[in-house]
Amino acid sequence: MTASADIARLIISCPDQHGIVAAVSQTIAELGGNIISLDQYSTGVEGGQFFQRTVFHLPGFAAARPEVEAAIESKLAGRFSMDWQLTDAARPKRVAIFASKTDHCLLDLLWRHRRGELPVDIAMVISNHADLADDVRTFGIPYFHVPVDKHNKAVAEAKHLELLQGNVDLIVLARYMQILSPEFLEQVGAPIINIHHSFLPAFIGAGPYQKAKDRGVKLIGATAHYVTEDLDEGPIIEQDVIRVSHADDVAQLTRYGADVERAVLSRAVKWHCEDRVIRHGNTTIVF
Amino acid sequence: MTASADIARLIISCPDQHGIVAAVSQTIAELGGNIISLDQYSTGVEGGQFFQRTVFHLPGFAAARPEVEAAIESKLAGRFSMDWQLTDAARPKRVAIFASKTDHCLLDLLWRHRRGELPVDIAMVISNHADLADDVRTFGIPYFHVPVDKHNKAVAEAKHLELLQGNVDLIVLARYMQILSPEFLEQVGAPIINIHHSFLPAFIGAGPYQKAKDRGVKLIGATAHYVTEDLDEGPIIEQDVIRVSHADDVAQLTRYGADVERAVLSRAVKWHCEDRVIRHGNTTIVF
Amino acid sequence: MTASADIARLIISCPDQHGIVAAVSQTIAELGGNIISLDQYSTGVEGGQFFQRTVFHLPGFAAARPEVEAAIESKLAGRFSMDWQLTDAARPKRVAIFASKTDHCLLDLLWRHRRGELPVDIAMVISNHADLADDVRTFGIPYFHVPVDKHNKAVAEAKHLELLQGNVDLIVLARYMQILSPEFLEQVGAPIINIHHSFLPAFIGAGPYQKAKDRGVKLIGATAHYVTEDLDEGPIIEQDVIRVSHADDVAQLTRYGADVERAVLSRAVKWHCEDRVIRHGNTTIVF
Amino acid sequence: MTASADIARLIISCPDQHGIVAAVSQTIAELGGNIISLDQYSTGVEGGQFFQRTVFHLPGFAAARPEVEAAIESKLAGRFSMDWQLTDAARPKRVAIFASKTDHCLLDLLWRHRRGELPVDIAMVISNHADLADDVRTFGIPYFHVPVDKHNKAVAEAKHLELLQGNVDLIVLARYMQILSPEFLEQVGAPIINIHHSFLPAFIGAGPYQKAKDRGVKLIGATAHYVTEDLDEGPIIEQDVIRVSHADDVAQLTRYGADVERAVLSRAVKWHCEDRVIRHGNTTIVF
Repeated sequence: MTASADIARLIISCPDQHGIVAAVSQTIAELGGNIISLDQYSTGVEGGQFFQRTVFHLPGFAAARPEVEAAIESKLAGRFSMDWQLTDAARPKRVAIFASKTDHCLLDLLWRHRRGELPVDIAMVISNHADLADDVRTFGIPYFHVPVDKHNKAVAEAKHLELLQGNVDLIVLARYMQILSPEFLEQVGAPIINIHHSFLPAFIGAGPYQKAKDRGVKLIGATAHYVTEDLDEGPIIEQDVIRVSHADDVAQLTRYGADVERAVLSRAVKWHCEDRVIRHGNTTIVF
Repeated sequence: MTASADIARLIISCPDQHGIVAAVSQTIAELGGNIISLDQYSTGVEGGQFFQRTVFHLPGFAAARPEVEAAIESKLAGRFSMDWQLTDAARPKRVAIFASKTDHCLLDLLWRHRRGELPVDIAMVISNHADLADDVRTFGIPYFHVPVDKHNKAVAEAKHLELLQGNVDLIVLARYMQILSPEFLEQVGAPIINIHHSFLPAFIGAGPYQKAKDRGVKLIGATAHYVTEDLDEGPIIEQDVIRVSHADDVAQLTRYGADVERAVLSRAVKWHCEDRVIRHGNTTIVF
Repeated sequence: MTASADIARLIISCPDQHGIVAAVSQTIAELGGNIISLDQYSTGVEGGQFFQRTVFHLPGFAAARPEVEAAIESKLAGRFSMDWQLTDAARPKRVAIFASKTDHCLLDLLWRHRRGELPVDIAMVISNHADLADDVRTFGIPYFHVPVDKHNKAVAEAKHLELLQGNVDLIVLARYMQILSPEFLEQVGAPIINIHHSFLPAFIGAGPYQKAKDRGVKLIGATAHYVTEDLDEGPIIEQDVIRVSHADDVAQLTRYGADVERAVLSRAVKWHCEDRVIRHGNTTIVF
Repeated sequence: MTASADIARLIISCPDQHGIVAAVSQTIAELGGNIISLDQYSTGVEGGQFFQRTVFHLPGFAAARPEVEAAIESKLAGRFSMDWQLTDAARPKRVAIFASKTDHCLLDLLWRHRRGELPVDIAMVISNHADLADDVRTFGIPYFHVPVDKHNKAVAEAKHLELLQGNVDLIVLARYMQILSPEFLEQVGAPIINIHHSFLPAFIGAGPYQKAKDRGVKLIGATAHYVTEDLDEGPIIEQDVIRVSHADDVAQLTRYGADVERAVLSRAVKWHCEDRVIRHGNTTIVF
């Protein structure tokens, strides 16, 4: 990771109209900031929605932040009916990872974090099983075992919320094999990224590798998406596939798939934590 | 293409059991044949189905063919309850291509044929539109314009059958935008390969690129499959994908998709015509 | 292609320093332009080189162009020691394609042009052989046959220059099997894109597929690059590869390679003609 | 991994001639074996070299092995001037991994081994640094720290040989940053697989990612190959690439490259240990 002190990211979304790029650039320049990168996208010039991610260097950003926010609010937000978010690149997002018994996605995230590839603090791993505790603690990360069954789901989720609230900016489901309740989703207060083991929207639901085998597909895939109340229907962040053949049985598809899953999930988490992903209805803009 | 005189291909399918490879090899050796390549696959040793494709060189194969067939029948077919098919690599399959107004899949097949990449004779192109006649005839291929509308479908299909029957070994739907009737499928007497412009089973039916845009997928694909009575549900031969982004509109997805479609369809046609594709229920073995 | 009337592209390169993005945005806004997209890249904040491609909509751009150029010159060029280039998206680049006997790259460009994928005017095809004349003229493109041999090279290149000068903005070598002389390169006055049939810098020079076979590589590739006096050493625009195996002979590698070559060359030509490619020493920035 | 008791693999190489497949199949059948899979390749029918990998099930193979070997020797080896090798699928190859300070290739091999993806016993890890000892021992694998410097190289290699000889069937260099001496290669008595961090033959030698950056390539790759006395020139087993852009600095190329390296090396090791890789001069056949 390059040093990120004094680097800010401004993410905006507003109805498309003339002059947005110039106004944002001007505002940042007047604050003493220097634009490092700027990406934008519009769904259409007439009546479309405009999205922009601007990364800028501003000496003493941490101290100057209130002033920057005030300038955005007064010079940009009202004029352009703008939703905006300002983040400090020096403050890594705090992440909780949920896992069950399968280790590949979890370990890949922990390993990438350790080697400095992911701009995050991993605050904790929560699992409904005890199996992966040793692996996780080897990386120096707290591991909380919260068993879940039919009867204690509400209690378990209350425990989850207790652990999470105020402590995390993102939750990652790294092959966590429990469905989160609508109540949990409503209360958790942080976005949730899930990895689904198919090329969505193909093979929604359980057992996608078996379904892929039955349908005789020649590629299998994985999809990282934001979790919504509609299972496997949330906005897609990233997808990838790998070639397979008739000779691969379901166990082999599962092994190949694991490589795709961990790659796709780690990219989605990285991009989210770099503020590159903007939700737009049920899709995403990925800058 | 390598010279294919005196080269035969034996495709077999039977319940798996001991000794099939040895018996086939022995039979071919006794006939004076020399095995060039041999692929096999079993769905499982216990109660599974066995598939084998054997390519062998046998001097004077064309003349010796009845003798070879008799040997297969007497020494192999009964003993192993075998379905089998014997083809002469020197006899290219005769192909009819159906197209509508979109040219990319059609032209790619014609061009690959001309440069010697496809081991086929292209007997004719049939279209419900006149648009592509000049392009096709430039390649020296007959073009038959058979208009189809709601009212004349039965008549048009009768015309199709008249053109096809006895003349072709394979029909390729190169973005042919008409649904074939069950009656036509029953009478046509040749396998039909279709290219669908999505990664099946995602986005079945019409307008897959619009559906892909709406769902916000990060890859789009194409699928070549055998046509059955169940639309978009036939055995998949080949699939591929290409990466896209939020910035690609439906028109751009369509252009990217065209490249995948023509690549996937040409591979499927090539493999079919080399007798590499074996149907097994609703899936395929591709050797 | 989307309608491109009144759309301008400003490409700049200058030593990196504070305020470039803001100054450019401000200048465009003051001219009445609206920024559609903006890409930038810096090789480093301290002493680095800055590159930016800005696409903007400005009603009546064709008429206003001198005013725009004057504003860029007075407000930006001097202040930032800027190299800059302004192009009108409504004026497609005029392209000459050089070919020899091999058709795949040539035909793919002609076909993509016809279907509206390439924002170019193809002014002419020049070949040292007569073989492809009919194919080219079917597309309504002029074909000039200029034979080249050891003895007439200077004469032939003089003929080339006569055909090209003033008429083209880009030359594409679509598997043209003659080496261009330093004198020609100096006089031609237009950039030249070549497709090399290997993943450069592997297998420089003639016979790359044979070399790939001899070395036993598991992937083969193609490289589109700008032509310089150093053969196969010019700035790389685009590359891609395809998987091969021990079983593929040189002829098969050549066939697979053709698919990669035509895809890579068409992307490079498209990007160049959209002013997305900026040369930087012996490398390229591709926005 | 599927159960591999009573499964044998016969790898042969001989001058191509008629009847090899039939003779091998017949010999296996007479021994009571049932062929599970059979791959073959010939470099050419006239004067070419023939290669075959045959996997067969033979109840009680471990006990019957001398009898099988005698049959191969008497019925096949002399008749066809055959080099052959017979392996027992139930006996995993014993592997030593050499590493330095970089962990990605090493950890990926250990993790794949633990989850049952690699049919090997990892006997030991040898490193010239102490850094990775804890990580390795967490997997229950012995770690031997053998420092190497200019002055003690011969001593260190003697130590290596002492650890290795009689104990391993394969050595894997998982980004081991020392050059092995010709004497070591001569004495070690086991094949050695190395991962090189470029798409060989591009960027031979040290610093390939810097070289790739300087040349401005659009893809970077990795190559797994057998080690020979000629550095980076040994037979290639597997290669892959990943797309990069002008915006990726050398550190980022190195991170992307790590993903390709670990994927390529693990595939090469897996294939070698399944007896799928046959050396042929300076190339490989990979079945």
